[in-house]
Amino acid sequence: RVDGSRLWASLMDLARVGATPKGGNCRLALTDEDRQGRDLVAGWLRDTGLDIRVDRLGNIFARRPGRNNDLPPVVTGSHIDTQPTGGRFDGNYGVLAGLEVMRVLNEQSITTEAPMEVVIWTNEEGSRFVPVMMGSGAFAGMFTPEAALAARDHDGISVADELTRIGYAGDMPVGGRTLGAYFEAHIEQGPVLEKEQLQVGVVTGSLGLSWFDVVVTGQEAHAGPTPMEYRRDALQTACALVSDILTLAEPHAPHGRVTCGEFRVFPNSRNVIPGRVNFSVDLRHLEPAVLTAMEQRLRELCELCDTQGNNAGIEVELLEVQRIPPTPFAPKLVERVRACAEALAIPHRDMVTGAGHDAVYISRVAPTAMIFVPCVDGISHNECEDAKPEDLEAGANILLHAMLQTAEP
Amino acid sequence: RVDGSRLWASLMDLARVGATPKGGNCRLALTDEDRQGRDLVAGWLRDTGLDIRVDRLGNIFARRPGRNNDLPPVVTGSHIDTQPTGGRFDGNYGVLAGLEVMRVLNEQSITTEAPMEVVIWTNEEGSRFVPVMMGSGAFAGMFTPEAALAARDHDGISVADELTRIGYAGDMPVGGRTLGAYFEAHIEQGPVLEKEQLQVGVVTGSLGLSWFDVVVTGQEAHAGPTPMEYRRDALQTACALVSDILTLAEPHAPHGRVTCGEFRVFPNSRNVIPGRVNFSVDLRHLEPAVLTAMEQRLRELCELCDTQGNNAGIEVELLEVQRIPPTPFAPKLVERVRACAEALAIPHRDMVTGAGHDAVYISRVAPTAMIFVPCVDGISHNECEDAKPEDLEAGANILLHAMLQTAEP
Ligand SMILES: NC(=O)NCCC(=O)O
Ligand SMILES: NC(=O)NCCC(=O)O
Repeated sequence: RVDGSRLWASLMDLARVGATPKGGNCRLALTDEDRQGRDLVAGWLRDTGLDIRVDRLGNIFARRPGRNNDLPPVVTGSHIDTQPTGGRFDGNYGVLAGLEVMRVLNEQSITTEAPMEVVIWTNEEGSRFVPVMMGSGAFAGMFTPEAALAARDHDGISVADELTRIGYAGDMPVGGRTLGAYFEAHIEQGPVLEKEQLQVGVVTGSLGLSWFDVVVTGQEAHAGPTPMEYRRDALQTACALVSDILTLAEPHAPHGRVTCGEFRVFPNSRNVIPGRVNFSVDLRHLEPAVLTAMEQRLRELCELCDTQGNNAGIEVELLEVQRIPPTPFAPKLVERVRACAEALAIPHRDMVTGAGHDAVYISRVAPTAMIFVPCVDGISHNECEDAKPEDLEAGANILLHAMLQTAEP
Repeated sequence: RVDGSRLWASLMDLARVGATPKGGNCRLALTDEDRQGRDLVAGWLRDTGLDIRVDRLGNIFARRPGRNNDLPPVVTGSHIDTQPTGGRFDGNYGVLAGLEVMRVLNEQSITTEAPMEVVIWTNEEGSRFVPVMMGSGAFAGMFTPEAALAARDHDGISVADELTRIGYAGDMPVGGRTLGAYFEAHIEQGPVLEKEQLQVGVVTGSLGLSWFDVVVTGQEAHAGPTPMEYRRDALQTACALVSDILTLAEPHAPHGRVTCGEFRVFPNSRNVIPGRVNFSVDLRHLEPAVLTAMEQRLRELCELCDTQGNNAGIEVELLEVQRIPPTPFAPKLVERVRACAEALAIPHRDMVTGAGHDAVYISRVAPTAMIFVPCVDGISHNECEDAKPEDLEAGANILLHAMLQTAEP
C-alpha cells in the first residue's frame, strides 16, 4: 500500500512552485516555474535511486531497473506544466503517484521482473505552445520532434530556445523505443465520480478532439468619427459567429463539446474599431462520425459569415490546428485496472475521458490504461481545483498493483 | 505662408520614431518611443528659439515671447503619442503645424503683441492609460494631476513612474494659468471632407463621449470533460451582449456611435472555458439628451443579462470610466478660422468632430477652435492613415493667420 500522506505532502510541496494567490498554480510549459518544478521532482526521483534521462524534447524518464532489463519498461507518469490559472493536481498527481509507487517498492525491497519508469512529459497543457500533449505526441510519432521544437508561443519564443534556456534540452532521441505498458493516474476533471460518490474511474478511452483557429479580418478605424454604416468591425462578426459556434454541440449531447477558449482582439484599444479577431475552437465527441459532422458544421458557419450579408468587407478564415481521433485504451490493461479496484474494494465505474491526456497519444504505441479519481465539483483548469487525499491514495494504490502485476509477466 | 514641404519633412522625420512595418506608428504614451519622439520635437522647438517648459504631467510648452508678455499666450498644439497601430498624422500634425508657424514667424522676423506657445499634451490617445486626453484634461481641471499620475496601464505601471523613467516629469504646476486662445489643427479622422473634396473643416464643436467597462464573470473549467449544461461560459454571455450593444446607436443616426474596442478574455487558453471577459464600450452623440438615452439603454442591456435566463451563474457588471459632454467651441474663434479660410480661398465647410481632442478639454478654460484637414478614405487609428501634403499645408496656413490675428488684439 502507498503512503497517502507522503503523496499528499509531495503534491503540496510541488504546488508551492508557481503558486497563485487563489491557491492554484501557474507553471506554464518551459517557463522558469516549470524549470523549478522539474528540478524539484527530478531531485526527488533521483533521491529515490532512479536513473534520470532527458530526451531532446525535455521529456524526463526516471528508471528503476528490474531483474530482466531487456524487457520493455512498465511506465507511468503525466505532466507538471499547468494552465495559466491551473490547479495543484492536474498532471502533478500522475507524476507524484508514480514517484510514490517507486518509494513504496524501495521500502518493501521489491524488485520486479521488468524495469519500471516514471515519466514527466513536456507541455501537456498546450496553453503556451501547440501541439498540446507535445512530449507524448512526439514520443508516439504523431508529429516530428523538429515540428515540436519549432513551435512558438504568442511572443514568438520557440520550444527549442526555452528548453535550452531552462536546461532541459536532453540528448536522448525522442521515442523510438518500446514501452511494455503505460499507466496514467489523473483527476477526472469532470463531475461524474463525485456525483456518484465513487473513488475511481476505470478509463476505457477518450473523446476525439479537433482544434481550429478562426481569423476574422475587418478594418480598424477611429471609434469617434467613423459612422456606423462605414464600419468593418471584426469584433461584431466574431461575436455573432462565436454565438452560433457555441450552439453547435447541442444536437450531440451528452458527449458533444464546443469551446472557444482563446479570443484576441486587435489592436484592442478602447477607441479603435477592432480590425481583427483571432479565436480558437475546440470540438470534442466520442463518435468519429459525429466529430466529423461537428467539424463540417463549423466550416459551414464560417463560410456563411465570410464576406456575406451583414459581414460584407469582413473575411473569415478557418485554420486547422490539431486533431486527435476518439481513442480506445488497451482492453487487457483496462481490465487489470478494474480488477485491482475490485480486489482493493475501491468503489469504481468505467468512463471515458473528455480531456486529452498523454496516455491518449501513448496508447498509439504501447498498451495503455488510465485511472481517474474525483476532483471537487468536477472543476479543473481553475485555481480552485481540489481533490481528497483519500481518493488520491486509492488511485495510487490501484496504480501500484496494476504496475506490479504488469511488471511480473 | 507656411513652407508645406518643410512641414511634410518634419512629419516624416517624426514618423520614423516607433515606425511600424505597415507604414504606421506605434508610439504609446510614455514608452521609450514616446520619449524619443518628445526629444526630437522638443529639440526642433528649442532650435527655433523657443523656451521649453515641462509640467508635472509631462505636458511640454514651447514659448515665443511677444511685445507684451503680460498678455495671456495664444497657444496651439496637439499630441505625439499614438495608438498601438496608429498613423503618422493624428496629433503629430497639430504639433508640427505649430512648429511650422513659429519657424515662419522667425523667418519673417514677426513679433506679435501677445506671446505664442506650442504645446505637446501627454497621453491624448488613452489607449495605454485612461483618462484619455490626460494632459489637457488635467490642465483644464477636469480631474486632478494626482489622479492622472496614479493611472496604471494593463501591466500595472503608473503614469508617475513612466514620466520619471523617460525624464519628462517636469516641475511646472499643471494648469492654473490663463490661455488667451487655443487652436488645434488635426486630420478629420472621418470621411466627410474627402468625399466633398474640401480642404478644410471649420470645427464648431464635438460629439459627447461616454466610456464604460463591462466585466462578465462566469467560471473557468476544462473544455473537455465539462458537459455543456454545467458551463458558466463568460465568453458566451459577453458575445451575445456585445452583439446587442453594437446595435444601440442604430436609432440615433447619423451622430450616434457605439464601439467595443477592447475585449479581453481570461484565462484565454484554448482548452479552458472562459471564466471572465472584460470589454469596453464607447458611446458618442452630439445631443446631450440622446447620449444620456444611449447610456440608459446600455445599462438596461447589462441588467437584462446579469444572472438572468440563459445567463444564470454569470455576473455582468457595468463600470463608468470617463464622460465628456458634447462641447461647442468659441463662436468668435470658429468665425475667425472660417474667415481665414475664406480670405485664403481654401474650400471648407463647418463640421463637428466625432473624435475627442485636447481642444475639447481646453475649450472649458480658454476660447478654442479647431481646423480639420482631410485624411485618405477617412481612416485613422490605423497604420495606413494618410493625408495629402497640400491639405496639410492649407490647414497650417489657416492656423498661421488665425493665430496672428488673435495675437494682435
Ligand atoms: N488533461 C488535460 O488538461 N489535458 C489537456 C488537453 C485537453 O485539452 O484535453
Ligand atoms: N483624436 C483622437 O484620436 N482622440 C482620441 C480620443 C477619442 O477617442 O476621441
